[in-house]
Amino acid sequence: MMKFAVPLFSVVILAATSLGSAAHATDAAQMEANKKTVVDFYEKGLNQKDFEAASKYFGPQYIQHNPTAPDGPQGFKGLVDLLRSKFPNSHSEIKRVFADGDYVILHVHNVREPGTRGSAIVDIFRLDQGKIVEHWDVRQDVPEQAANPNTMF
Amino acid sequence: MMKFAVPLFSVVILAATSLGSAAHATDAAQMEANKKTVVDFYEKGLNQKDFEAASKYFGPQYIQHNPTAPDGPQGFKGLVDLLRSKFPNSHSEIKRVFADGDYVILHVHNVREPGTRGSAIVDIFRLDQGKIVEHWDVRQDVPEQAANPNTMF
Repeated sequence: MMKFAVPLFSVVILAATSLGSAAHATDAAQMEANKKTVVDFYEKGLNQKDFEAASKYFGPQYIQHNPTAPDGPQGFKGLVDLLRSKFPNSHSEIKRVFADGDYVILHVHNVREPGTRGSAIVDIFRLDQGKIVEHWDVRQDVPEQAANPNTMF
Repeated sequence: MMKFAVPLFSVVILAATSLGSAAHATDAAQMEANKKTVVDFYEKGLNQKDFEAASKYFGPQYIQHNPTAPDGPQGFKGLVDLLRSKFPNSHSEIKRVFADGDYVILHVHNVREPGTRGSAIVDIFRLDQGKIVEHWDVRQDVPEQAANPNTMF
């Protein structure tokens, strides 16, 4: 038995290394896919204001943490409807996109009325099997004055 | 020459694969280290309110995008001093920590006065060679009423 011990051990190590690399590659690919999903969801829903086009990205549930919106896709539809009716020129510029595990994070400058300073927003989305299933956000109006010259973005 | 072509090619492929894995591993290790750095910076600076202890994590510059704070470590010291003098019981609970490339993102519940609802905050830090060099944030008060039962966290 002993003469196989070292080679077998090496094979196990090699196999484990290969599996590890494959898992990393899959994770990285899934995170990139998740970024694209969230960016397209955001563009379709909040800029094109097309709820149907955006809703294809929802998973079987959509847990909402934005305190102004009810749970579920219908809560998001309420926001899209509000933008269409009250702020048809509202535009959200995605400044940064991050992904970590099942989460995608967007740093966004939203201007509801062109010519106004708008708001800084961070949206956090959780995905499950590539579908959007949960959302948190934080919004702050961009102030007129700032103590540094760097803008909020 | 030809009899070395295939083995040489294989060696190059193997070397490239190993380098790729090593680079991934380094990235992952650096991102984990960055998370620890930012969490400890946050704990020391904003919970222990110890500017000196936090300041060891600053790089050669600290570009500030929070509109209420001046650029540089001294701007951050102003916030720590404010907390020490006006809100000594202020506590920031880190709910989620994300990392992507050179960035670390924190989702935080800050309560300046115990017993109040406090604020939801997302902080974004950029690191360079493991040191904190840039910061953005967005802050929103937790409202009394919400349209869903999920809280802002």
